Formats: sequence, C-alpha cells, structure tokens
Amino acid sequence: MHNTFGTLFTLTTFGESHGEAIGGVVDGMPAGILIDMEFIQSELRRRRPGQSHITTQRNEQDQVELLSGVFEGKSTGCPIGFIVRNTNQHSADYDDLRSLFRPSHADFTYTCKYGIRDYRGGGRSSARITISRCVGGALAKLALRQMGVSITAYTSQVGNIILDRDYTKYDFAEIEHNPVRCPDPIAAKRMEQLIGEMKAVGDTIGGVVTCVVKGCPKGIGEPEFGKLHAMLGAAMLSINAAKGFEYGEGFNCATARGSELNDAFTTEDRSIRTVTNHSGGIQGGISNGEDIYFRTAFKPTATILQEQTTVDNAGNPATLCAKGRHDPCVLPRAVPIVEAMASMVILDYIMLNKATNS
Amino acid sequence: MHNTFGTLFTLTTFGESHGEAIGGVVDGMPAGILIDMEFIQSELRRRRPGQSHITTQRNEQDQVELLSGVFEGKSTGCPIGFIVRNTNQHSADYDDLRSLFRPSHADFTYTCKYGIRDYRGGGRSSARITISRCVGGALAKLALRQMGVSITAYTSQVGNIILDRDYTKYDFAEIEHNPVRCPDPIAAKRMEQLIGEMKAVGDTIGGVVTCVVKGCPKGIGEPEFGKLHAMLGAAMLSINAAKGFEYGEGFNCATARGSELNDAFTTEDRSIRTVTNHSGGIQGGISNGEDIYFRTAFKPTATILQEQTTVDNAGNPATLCAKGRHDPCVLPRAVPIVEAMASMVILDYIMLNKATNS
Amino acid sequence: MHNTFGTLFTLTTFGESHGEAIGGVVDGMPAGILIDMEFIQSELRRRRPGQSHITTQRNEQDQVELLSGVFEGKSTGCPIGFIVRNTNQHSADYDDLRSLFRPSHADFTYTCKYGIRDYRGGGRSSARITISRCVGGALAKLALRQMGVSITAYTSQVGNIILDRDYTKYDFAEIEHNPVRCPDPIAAKRMEQLIGEMKAVGDTIGGVVTCVVKGCPKGIGEPEFGKLHAMLGAAMLSINAAKGFEYGEGFNCATARGSELNDAFTTEDRSIRTVTNHSGGIQGGISNGEDIYFRTAFKPTATILQEQTTVDNAGNPATLCAKGRHDPCVLPRAVPIVEAMASMVILDYIMLNKATNS
Amino acid sequence: MHNTFGTLFTLTTFGESHGEAIGGVVDGMPAGILIDMEFIQSELRRRRPGQSHITTQRNEQDQVELLSGVFEGKSTGCPIGFIVRNTNQHSADYDDLRSLFRPSHADFTYTCKYGIRDYRGGGRSSARITISRCVGGALAKLALRQMGVSITAYTSQVGNIILDRDYTKYDFAEIEHNPVRCPDPIAAKRMEQLIGEMKAVGDTIGGVVTCVVKGCPKGIGEPEFGKLHAMLGAAMLSINAAKGFEYGEGFNCATARGSELNDAFTTEDRSIRTVTNHSGGIQGGISNGEDIYFRTAFKPTATILQEQTTVDNAGNPATLCAKGRHDPCVLPRAVPIVEAMASMVILDYIMLNKATNS
Repeated sequence: MHNTFGTLFTLTTFGESHGEAIGGVVDGMPAGILIDMEFIQSELRRRRPGQSHITTQRNEQDQVELLSGVFEGKSTGCPIGFIVRNTNQHSADYDDLRSLFRPSHADFTYTCKYGIRDYRGGGRSSARITISRCVGGALAKLALRQMGVSITAYTSQVGNIILDRDYTKYDFAEIEHNPVRCPDPIAAKRMEQLIGEMKAVGDTIGGVVTCVVKGCPKGIGEPEFGKLHAMLGAAMLSINAAKGFEYGEGFNCATARGSELNDAFTTEDRSIRTVTNHSGGIQGGISNGEDIYFRTAFKPTATILQEQTTVDNAGNPATLCAKGRHDPCVLPRAVPIVEAMASMVILDYIMLNKATNS
Repeated sequence: MHNTFGTLFTLTTFGESHGEAIGGVVDGMPAGILIDMEFIQSELRRRRPGQSHITTQRNEQDQVELLSGVFEGKSTGCPIGFIVRNTNQHSADYDDLRSLFRPSHADFTYTCKYGIRDYRGGGRSSARITISRCVGGALAKLALRQMGVSITAYTSQVGNIILDRDYTKYDFAEIEHNPVRCPDPIAAKRMEQLIGEMKAVGDTIGGVVTCVVKGCPKGIGEPEFGKLHAMLGAAMLSINAAKGFEYGEGFNCATARGSELNDAFTTEDRSIRTVTNHSGGIQGGISNGEDIYFRTAFKPTATILQEQTTVDNAGNPATLCAKGRHDPCVLPRAVPIVEAMASMVILDYIMLNKATNS
Repeated sequence: MHNTFGTLFTLTTFGESHGEAIGGVVDGMPAGILIDMEFIQSELRRRRPGQSHITTQRNEQDQVELLSGVFEGKSTGCPIGFIVRNTNQHSADYDDLRSLFRPSHADFTYTCKYGIRDYRGGGRSSARITISRCVGGALAKLALRQMGVSITAYTSQVGNIILDRDYTKYDFAEIEHNPVRCPDPIAAKRMEQLIGEMKAVGDTIGGVVTCVVKGCPKGIGEPEFGKLHAMLGAAMLSINAAKGFEYGEGFNCATARGSELNDAFTTEDRSIRTVTNHSGGIQGGISNGEDIYFRTAFKPTATILQEQTTVDNAGNPATLCAKGRHDPCVLPRAVPIVEAMASMVILDYIMLNKATNS
Repeated sequence: MHNTFGTLFTLTTFGESHGEAIGGVVDGMPAGILIDMEFIQSELRRRRPGQSHITTQRNEQDQVELLSGVFEGKSTGCPIGFIVRNTNQHSADYDDLRSLFRPSHADFTYTCKYGIRDYRGGGRSSARITISRCVGGALAKLALRQMGVSITAYTSQVGNIILDRDYTKYDFAEIEHNPVRCPDPIAAKRMEQLIGEMKAVGDTIGGVVTCVVKGCPKGIGEPEFGKLHAMLGAAMLSINAAKGFEYGEGFNCATARGSELNDAFTTEDRSIRTVTNHSGGIQGGISNGEDIYFRTAFKPTATILQEQTTVDNAGNPATLCAKGRHDPCVLPRAVPIVEAMASMVILDYIMLNKATNS
C-alpha cells in the first residue's frame, strides 16, 4: 500500500530493480500542457548511474515511454501511464543474496513484512525505482514552468565538506557543471576527491541536499495536517537513504531566540514581504511568497565492498562480501529526485489551493 | 482541507483558540478497548499551559467530553467525537491584532490563503488546537498498551543545553518529575533556568524533543511513499513550531561512512537482531523490531514581549508590542504532542499491516 | 472507518441515537461564505420526526451548534465542527433489545463486525445520525447558492402510488406544502392516506425519492472511477434504507434501443444543448449542462409494531414485539437527506474541477 | 483525477482506446498469492469483442504483461504494474469524429472539461479501458479464491426478455455456454436473436446484469459512508453505460411493506441465519453471511449505424453516420466487468475488516 503520492496531482509507482519494468501513473496532470519528451528524458538521464567516474558503473540506458494521457503533443487531463524497461540486468550477480540479509538494507524488513522478497538488486527497495519519481517530477515541472515556479536542488554537503554560505550566495548555473552537483566549484572538487577515496576503499559517504523553490505563490499549504513543510518533509523522507529533513533555519532554531529568528514584515513595491527569511518561506504551514528552502540528509549507501558480518534467512551467522559495482555517494543522484518530489508537492498544493479559492 | 490525519486510524480536528470549542473525531478506533477517561484527561493536562512557573500563565481548565463511540466503558468501533470547550477567553486582548500581522506567525499567510482570518489568539494556528491531537493520541495509546507498545518523548535540548548521551542512558521515570520534561535532572535545572531568563526578558528559546518507541512489531511501514519514518516525519512536522525531523543517526549520517553506520545482524535468543541501531529501528521504511527513535526541532515561539516592526493589513509600517502572557519555551508542552502523534502513526501502521497479512 | 465523505469538501460524522450528541466536521468549506444559521436550523427541522401526524412522534428538538470555522458570520476556510445534543432520550425503552436481534436491522451485523453494539435505538445505525448529513448539506447549499446551483428532491412514489409524469411537469413550490413532500397535491393526499393506513396497523411502506439538480456547470465529474453519477449513487446508497439508485432513464434503459435513447445535440442561443435528456445530464460521467436527475428507492423501515420471530444473542428463538413509536414511511424525511448528500457531491466536484482547470 | 479505485486493495488505471497501451497498477495485493497467468489471460478474453457473431467484430488480441510485484510465480506484496498493448487500431476510421460530437457519447463533456480530447475511438471513455478492470479483478479473484469467496455475474435481461426467476433457480455452469452469458438456455436463445436483429438494423439494445457473491464472511462493510452496498453501487455505476443499481429487492422495495420484507432470524447448525434474504445479504451496510446479490442496468450503447443529427465543435448542425463495427448489446461483455469490480470491492472490504478486528 501507499505506492501513491499526492492528493490531486498523484503519482502511483511500481517496479523492482530486476523486474520487467519500472513505471507508474500520473493522475491529475492539468490538460493542455505541452509534453516535452526530450525534457523528460533528460531528467531521467540526470538520475542515471554511470554518468561519471564517481558513481556506480551500471550503465542504465533508461528510455521512458509514455503510454497514455498525451494527444497531439499535449496532456489531455487523463492519466499518463509510463514505463521504463529494465535492461542490462545481471540478476545472477545477486544469487548469493537469496539467503543473506545485507546490513542496513531492507532485505530483512521486507521478509518480516511480506514473508517473501525479490532479492535481486534490492527488489522494490532499490534506488532504481526512483525512475518513476523522476518522470512524475518532470511532468510536474512542465506544468510549474508555465506558472513561473522554479525548483533547484544541489549537493551542499558530502561528509565533512560543507558549503558554509546560504543558497543566495551561489550561482545555480554551476550545479550541473560538476559531477557532484554542487554550486561551489572548489567545494565540488573536494567532494569529488572524497567520493573517489571512498570508492577506492569500497566504502560510502553521506551528505546533504539543499533545495530552493522560487516563485511559489502565496497562500499554498493546507493546515492542520497538510502543512506545506510537513508534506515536503514526507516527500523527502520517502526517498531512499534519507535520514533527516529541515526547512528554514531548521535544527539551528533549537539554539536561537525568538527575537533573533522572527521575520519582520515590510512593504516592498506595494507587496508585503519579510525582511529576513528564517522561516524558509512558510509560516503556519502556508507559503508567504518568499523563497522556500529546505535540506535533506542522506546516509552513506549501505552497499559497501567490504566484508561484513550478518545472518542468513535462518538466523545463522554469515559473512557478506558484496562484489562488483557500488555507489560511493548517493548525493549527486539524489539531487534530481529531491527536485522531482518537491515539484510534485508544490504543483499538488497549488491545485489544492485553486479548488478552495472562491 | 487536510484536517484529517491517518489512513485507518484517523483523527479529524476542528477548532480555534477563541472559538466555542476545540474538538475532533477519531475514526477507526478498534472495538472493545477500555476507555480510561482519567487517562485521557491526564494526557490533556500534560499539554496544558499554566502547569509551572516557566510556561504561559493562561490557566486552561480543559475538560474533554467524549460524545460517541463508547458504550458501557468500551469503544464500539464507531467514530469517537469529542470536544473541549474554550473558557476563560480574553478575546478583547487580541483586538489590536485585528489589523496587524505578527512576525513569524500565520496571520499573514492565513490572510493570503483565505482572505479572512480569525485573529483572536492565532485562531486556527494557535497552539491550543493541539488539544485534539492529545485526545487522539490518548485513545491510540490505550489501544497500543494492549499490544505492548510504549512511546516516550522528552526534552533533549533547550537552546544550547543539550543532552549529550543517547536515550538508553537515561531513566524515563525522571521525565515527568521536572517542568521541562527532561530525563537528566541536572540538565533539567539548567534548562529551567534558561527558560526563566527568557521569560524575564520577554524572549523565547527553541529546542529539541527526542522520542522513543519500544515494542513496535517488526514489519510495520508501507513503502514506497508511506515509509514509516516518512509518516512519522510528516506527523512531527505538522506540530506547531516544528522546523526539523531526523530519525536514527539523522543529520549525523551526512558525515559518516557506510562502514561505520551499517547495523550488522546477529541472532539473539533465536531472534534476528541488529548489533547496533544506527538505523533507528527502521530499514527501507519498515520497522525491524529494534527501538525506533527520532528527534524533532522546535523554533522559539514567535510571540515575544518585545517591540517588533511589522505592517498592518494594508501594508503600512507598524510597531507591534505584544502584552500579557507568553510562552518562553514550547518544548515541555511539545513533549506530549510528539508522543500523541507518534502513537497515532504507530497504531495506524499496525492496523495497515494487519490488513495485508495473509 | 469510512465515516468521512468527499474529497475536497468533506463531511466526517459521529454519533449514536442515544449517545451524548450527534455531530461532525465539515472540512473544505470555501472561505468567505455567509453562514445563515437560520437556514441550517431550518434544514435540520425538515428531517425531524414529529413534524406531522404521519411520522414518528418522537419530538426531536434538535438544535445545532457550530463550534468553529465561522468568524464574524462568515466561513473562514477552517473546519467547521458542529454538534446536536441528544435530548429526550428514552433509552430504557430499548432495554429489551439488549439481547435480541431485530429483523432487517443492523443489530446482528454490527455484533458480527465489532463484537459489541450500542443497542439503544439502533445506536450508530439509527436514522437519527442523518442529522450530520443535514448540517453538512446545508453548508454545501450555502456555497452552491452563490454559484447558481439548486438541488430539489421530492417523494415520487409511496407503495404503488407513483407519480406518472417526469419532474418537468410539477411545481416544486408545492413540495413543502404537504407532509409527504410530493409536488402533486392529489397524489400527496393518497400517499398520506396510505401511510396513515400503515401506521394504523403498525406496518411500514417503501417508496422512491426523485432529485433534480439545476444549474450544474458543464464539465463536472471525474472519470474513470469518480464518474459524477457513481459518486451520486454512492452518496444515495449510503442513506439508511436505500436499496436502489438510477439516473436519467435508469432501469428503463434496459428495454430501450440506442436509436430511441440517444440525445441529439443542437445549438440554442450559441450554447450546445441536447434536444432530449435521457442521459440525465451526465455523459461519460461528466455533466453536460442539462438538468441532472436521479431516483433513489427506499425500503419500508424495519421497525414494525407487529410480532416477529427472531433469535437472541445466543441464537435461541425469540419473539420480538416492538412497542411505542414507529415511522410508517421514511420517504418524507429522506427527501432532505437526498438533497443534502447531492449538494455535498456537487460542491465537492465543482471544487475538484476548479483544481484542474488551467 | 479519481482513476484509482479502492482503499487498501487499489487499482489505478490509464489508457485510451487508440493510445499505446491500456494498463494499470494494483496496489495492496496480499503477498504470497499464486499468480495464475493463464487465468488472468482467460478473464481478459471474456471481455474481448469479436468472441461471437453478436458482438463487435474488432478482434482484439489482448495480451497482458505483468511488469512487477510477482516473483517466482507469487505476489510479493509490492504493486503489480501491467500493460496491454493496443494493436490493430484503425485510428483513421475516426478522423471524421475529430470535429463532431457523437450523441450520448462523452465527446462533448470531455471537451467541456478538459478543452481537449483524444477523439480516436472514444479515447479514455472507450469501453476498451475496461481491460484494466479485468486484470485487477482477476488478481482479486485469485486472492478471494483462497478465502472461499466466489463471485458470479450473468445477463438477466436484454430488452424485454427478462429472466423471471431469482438466481437460486439457475445453473451458473450454463452461463459461459452461450454468447449472451445467460444461465437460462431458452432465454439466451431469444436474447441472441434480439441482439442479432439489432445488429441487422444498426441499432443497439440495453439490459441488466445480475451478480451473486457467495461465501462473503459476516461483518464486511464500513458504515457510515462506506456501506458495502454503497461501494458496490459506486463500482457498478462506474462501468461504462451503467444507468442503475439495486441490491436485494431493490426498487421492488418501494411497493412493499415492512411486514413482507423483513428477514426473520433463525438458527441453523448453530449459526444465525435469516429465513428469507430480501436484504440481499447486507444489513446496515454490513454483510450478514447470506448471499449478496445485486443488479446493474446498462443502456444500449450509443454507437449506432444510423443517421443522427448533432453539432460540430463550433456548434454548427451536422449529420453523423457511424460506419464499420458496432456493438449491438454490451451486456455479454459487461458480465466479466461486473464480476471484476465486485471482486475488488469484496477483497478490499475483507482487508479493511482485518485491519480493525482485535
């Protein structure tokens, strides 16, 4: 259950790492939007492994096929079904995982829950299933574009290499110019080097993705339980390997005083604005028209090329030694997924707001 | 919209700070549960302001009335409606807020969204509406009790006073023995002193609540979008003043390596366990039977008794000087709300799991 | 579960016949609507028993109290909680029902489902709980009024007294002028007489309510599963004692040919219309701008003042002889409930449509 | 929106008549169920046109492909994505429909709603999209089989040829032995002849499908709004061309008295049963363990091979003369869809009930 995300703009997903295909259904796509296939495909390419020497070398030639909901190049308002075939699978590589529980993977918990698991490449819990999110996000972006909303994510931390300035100080155009997707070229180099070191020793490293939403209209969000940041948080935390979420000043608020943190109002060009934006563009769960920004922490991926102790299905002690490819740092590939999820949330909430406005 | 929380065990809420009543409907309460009214009322008392010298002095004599769904002392499986009357309201105190937007409150965003707002005491965005969550949480706790699940939250940080050990090192029995709800009596004293200082100068301070779930069965959680931690995150982030959420090692994961963070499996008394619990009891979005723990960051409350610059409804510059009562630190009162929300999530997910088990 | 109705405009209900109160929460009420309390109360009066000599004589003085979501006479967009206290209960009347299953009531099935039941007056399955629907419907009507949508129901059949002309031939102003709520005064008299005969012998009689929606905008409805008539059907069938639903030509279609039934298009005053309206204003699940009309069949209420054979909780044979009041015909009181449910469906769907329109 | 059906066992669908593929996602399939591909394919064949001389001659070679959620022949509990490619399309046949609104089709309403429509073969409103329902229903049947629940539908009326006895009097084994799917061989012959006459003159005829659920456990159903028959009604009414729904005695109840219709309780083999079953196995919205039976009325399909007056997109008068194939009677093909929808509802509700049982 719960393979559907959203209220009005919804994405329902399916697929496993080594099944026939990954895919999904987008329901609620506004009608009449130009469907730019090349853009959707390019978004998919951004999440693909094998893009650079620092990511896993599985070369996924993912080709998306839209099966419905588009007519003469435009969305019809009907559901858009899509699939991406799984090719180039080496399922046999995973035969030794049939009976072993990999530490900090979902092998054990899926077995607890369902009594059965597709052990090939992590099955449903594989990072590969984020393909569906990419496609859903790309469609949402096409609709948001027409509304003047832009959503940009970037790697702001890998291990202890941390961007020390806030997002306003960086040139977002830089992000796609380096393999770590970091807007600071110098930090990017250091991150790349650190990831390379991890790769060399078969280890992995965590990090943080920052995301910024510009142009979100005022008044978006649905208190009490559908606060805009609560839904953004749920969206981010649903991404594989996410461990934490904060928006605005986030955890820093814990050490701050109200007198330091409150955002005074002012009037600029007849528009009410805040002088500072510690709130992160959201007050009481509703957007105030300022930039929305938030950060998502990712753990180092669990697959490491080092010997680990574990147990088998029967609970007997065992030693696991993964071989072949691994992804030393998930951050660069998490960036487009963060954008995709944020895009779907913002579009969904803009639609919700239209429904209630008199 | 979105004033309902949950899938099978749901809480729908209503009410404003200075309206007639706060209340809600719990739908999906399992039948046959003993409804301990004294327990529900005691949970309500925990969230009440005016409990100690460090919280706001508004003395809320909140009396809950269950209106349905209970027969001869037991739940019937039918929806439980409940209300808590608002009494002792001094709405006139808020007359000067009719036309002013308080910084970092929801006054401005509600006006943007709805074109109208109940300005008395924050209206729907008041902390007072957490009453409904308390009642829903108390009902969930009554059901969870029978399943051997216990959920405990405590204040682990106020300003820069931070508990430096993990939850296993503290005696939870201590929590309710001090007004800040901190299991470390020495830190509690220092927190209390800091909050007192804030109160003296009309300022406020933020902090962190930690929560621990013990006894959660294995296999709870609904990937892909209903991952257990994603729903816990959404629940926590929906609480007033919450700014961040992390589970397991959370943001610390960003600086860690996979080889440090992976939780090796072992067998203890014929049961598969993990040697460490960096994952926080959840892997791939599904519980693994270990303790679930997570942390929620709260900002300092926005109401401060200091002069602030702002604008009025028309955008004209204005000066705001709140008077009367204020809450220098929301943390102690956030503790029971965190427990309430976590209780509802865990019960809901246990029920979801029962639905699909063959 | 499933005590909530609707997608964007939702009604969540609670209450039992002899509990403390009946009530609910309306979430999604558009902001800024004038809340005419006298109108809401008058809608409640329409469903009340004891209005005339032909209905049950339980004199329910139902007074609704709105507890939230209204400020200075207008809706705020926040949830509207409401209650109606149960008074004048004679629960002791039902003591002999504690252990008997009344034929064709829900006593047995509730016991199967929940293992416990509130036997007083039917508990949750009592017709009294339609109070919440009336209030929800009245709020929806207030919003629809501003959009020029009107919804009218009437009794079109009681036993074998059947209105033989379609709705266009009757004067709706007549409906509230007779106790059976039938627009044909002569048929109304005969229905009244038949119901009186039923009352005299302690029996009950079924019938049909017809409902007409005028002014519904074109384009309302959400295929594939949310077809407008499917949701209207679900709404009507959820009313106590409903046994059938049809729209447009309904079951008559079974004997008709396509060449007889198709509605040819034409242009009138630059607007595309249909020449006939066999479709009932809905084609492919979406409104076409013509009148929407549908019919709902109700069974005779199960409470009869005649001796019936049954079993007790333990399965032992028993004889039931209900005493006191009974409702010889539910039709007159079903009329406002049909209107209420239809109003909520239409408003909900208009809101859904606004969400997706570019 | 609303292309998803169900609460826990959900079907999300996509696809148009002449798009790339029809398909969907089943979420909530219980884990560990044997997936009998041949059975699923055979269910698909039952809905296919071109099975006999009385249906449309479009020979659809529909081959279903399950893309996920099945591993080593069993369901894994993860979502099951599936597609059926559209082949043998003659889209050019529909070019003249680009600008004409076909009477009683959804062409006009889709255009009103979305401002755009896929006019090829009815697009999203084509009967072809019931393919997805067939697949979802087949999966539900596989799960229900293990629970001893069987669901059987049949044609009980075509035009004025009406089965005059209730379902208990017929041998269901006969149903698949004639092209109209009627359990009475003599009536079947007459229906076949009538349909043949319609075909000869390019006209169409309506009818009724009866459906019977045997073995449904007691206690299934979710009042207040999720009454079992309300959900069955919504399911049936969502099928193309459905115009009415009734369960138990249905519209006949309107002329009946309570004393005639009440189902007395008795005890049989220590089990509480009803002596009669006028209620149709459902009381108060919850199953009582007796057979559930209901009827769905279908209109004659709107495509007729006769000249009709209509308008074009601009509202100008026009004459429509459909050519080629048409389906003189939808009833035989509606039978498997009725079964499919009923199967999904019953399974969903059994799962819901498991969630709340203590």
